[in-house]
Amino acid sequence: MAFPELKNDRLIKALLRQPTDTTPVWIMRQAGRYLPEYRETRKAAGGFLDLCKNRELACEVTLQPLRRFNLDAAILFSDILTIPDAMGLGLYFSEGEGPKFERPLRSKADIDHLAVPDPTEKLRYVSDAISLVRKELDGAVPLIGFSGSPWTLSTYMVEGGSSKDYRHVKGMMYENPASMHRLLDILAQSVAAYLNAQIEAGAQALMIFDTWGGILTPETYRSFSLDYMQQILSLLHRQYDGQTIPVTLFTKAGSQWIEMIADTGCDAVGLDWTIDIDEARRRVGDKVALQGNLDPCTLYASPEVIRNAVKDIITKYGPGAGHVFNLGHGIHPAVNPDHLAVLIDAVHEFGHAIRQQPGSSG
Amino acid sequence: MAFPELKNDRLIKALLRQPTDTTPVWIMRQAGRYLPEYRETRKAAGGFLDLCKNRELACEVTLQPLRRFNLDAAILFSDILTIPDAMGLGLYFSEGEGPKFERPLRSKADIDHLAVPDPTEKLRYVSDAISLVRKELDGAVPLIGFSGSPWTLSTYMVEGGSSKDYRHVKGMMYENPASMHRLLDILAQSVAAYLNAQIEAGAQALMIFDTWGGILTPETYRSFSLDYMQQILSLLHRQYDGQTIPVTLFTKAGSQWIEMIADTGCDAVGLDWTIDIDEARRRVGDKVALQGNLDPCTLYASPEVIRNAVKDIITKYGPGAGHVFNLGHGIHPAVNPDHLAVLIDAVHEFGHAIRQQPGSSG
Repeated sequence: MAFPELKNDRLIKALLRQPTDTTPVWIMRQAGRYLPEYRETRKAAGGFLDLCKNRELACEVTLQPLRRFNLDAAILFSDILTIPDAMGLGLYFSEGEGPKFERPLRSKADIDHLAVPDPTEKLRYVSDAISLVRKELDGAVPLIGFSGSPWTLSTYMVEGGSSKDYRHVKGMMYENPASMHRLLDILAQSVAAYLNAQIEAGAQALMIFDTWGGILTPETYRSFSLDYMQQILSLLHRQYDGQTIPVTLFTKAGSQWIEMIADTGCDAVGLDWTIDIDEARRRVGDKVALQGNLDPCTLYASPEVIRNAVKDIITKYGPGAGHVFNLGHGIHPAVNPDHLAVLIDAVHEFGHAIRQQPGSSG
Repeated sequence: MAFPELKNDRLIKALLRQPTDTTPVWIMRQAGRYLPEYRETRKAAGGFLDLCKNRELACEVTLQPLRRFNLDAAILFSDILTIPDAMGLGLYFSEGEGPKFERPLRSKADIDHLAVPDPTEKLRYVSDAISLVRKELDGAVPLIGFSGSPWTLSTYMVEGGSSKDYRHVKGMMYENPASMHRLLDILAQSVAAYLNAQIEAGAQALMIFDTWGGILTPETYRSFSLDYMQQILSLLHRQYDGQTIPVTLFTKAGSQWIEMIADTGCDAVGLDWTIDIDEARRRVGDKVALQGNLDPCTLYASPEVIRNAVKDIITKYGPGAGHVFNLGHGIHPAVNPDHLAVLIDAVHEFGHAIRQQPGSSG
């Protein structure tokens, strides 16, 4: 597919650790419930899944935050559980309780029945939405595609939804590691095929959300989560149509393991707010770009506090290349959108200012 | 008060980094819902708070796990929210939703009204229960007293209960840090007075549970959580009646900050399962003992898997003094008690075996 040339390429450059005029910024869940226009579109769509699966509406909500804010990227509006849904587990959403599966995986037999879904069939709606967003964006900013990590997908698939104690998935991991590895291997192949289809449809950068990697031990994190993200990295078409497609790995609550994550060969590591970004930079050296890492709760405070918090992170990172500003997790539904505008403008202002310092190379 | 001499002093010795014949073990929430006899006593007591506030019943459930298992310590059965309850916030428990407060703190005025509760008045039931447990224990094993940390207590007091996003307490912290510091200072004084009363009543070791410190940034963790735990340490009667009272600090999800925690002057640091205990030992040197750190979900697996997991942690720690075995968080209600017996026996077996190695000093 031929798309217009990219006008604002700050995000791509920063993810590849190339100099930019200021720090690029996008926000996890920037298309979401904190925006009144999103809530209206969602109401019109019916359920959450109807919104994800309707190409036009998914495109509309993807673009909504870009009409309000000076963001440096769009991220496709979708759900992280599209793959298990396509595998036939029966995804549904019950109000206030989050995602659920009608047919959770609890046995070896459940897992043996699974197959890698063809992304051009049951996940076609995702590729279609991506191509439509690319067309509508008209090259203004890059479009990020994404997936949940194999481990994170497996937690929902085995528990049957969100969990507080992860007893079923961890019980299976400890008691039947071979079954868990089989499940994770199928998921890694599925995620790779899904993300490659997103690249073909027009995604210009990719992110893998490992929301629940942080509940593991160091050893099980490596063998049940990180190794499968690395397998995905090896299967992705990271050069496509003359462009490099940067890939960001984000393990929530994984700041103690960023060296391991940086060693996978990903382009960037997402950080939550439990680590100082200057310490993160020291620990990973110049292997990867870093994305993050403001506490989302900062947005409940006043504009002055928000500006100071943004300045603090940009100052800690310093003038060097390779920083993408973001929250350390998704924006909360109760946040005032005007506060996000303050954040985004502050990132560009302070990101520009720090590059004017003598000796700056970023 | 005069109590019988301690027969099994492994826990106290290990917390003070003195050699022991094997690794001592106790389990967070060892008196709790996974035990059928606990569920029966609780049913008879009426509500959860009735159980905490009844000296005889609190003593009974404290002793229940010691009748089943070869544990090296008792820990008082109580709740972490006794202090805010004594401050008049109106603690209650709604089934399936956890603790709630009728009158959460949302303003400076709410906080200005608070006073340090006299532990000999509204918290008298805790001291009474401790003295009774000490009498009933008859010196068999030491009794651990405990409190929630100021920060952790404040999260419940400001949110009005458990929270997913901590918007109110973090909003206050970012927007009105002076009010938060005033609240935390009152709580630090209250916790210190409460723990000193527990020492006077017979507690032989203390633990401070900072369950929600891990949701902070490094900087806010230090200034809003750790500094107040350090203030408590400076106020405690750590020498009492000729005995040293060891104090353990445990910040759940705080493994990235264990150096800071070890520098407070506490005797021991509790670890969750997100860090390898040998790495923790390297990072804190010989400043403190370490407590932990098996993933509680391991207990859903078979005895063989549990034994291997115990052996792995004991091997990683090595033969040196200063290790108290525990889970990395409370035991889950759905765990089979027989699996806990396997764990405890394995700790003593492997803890003894590792000390027989040539060159062992522990």
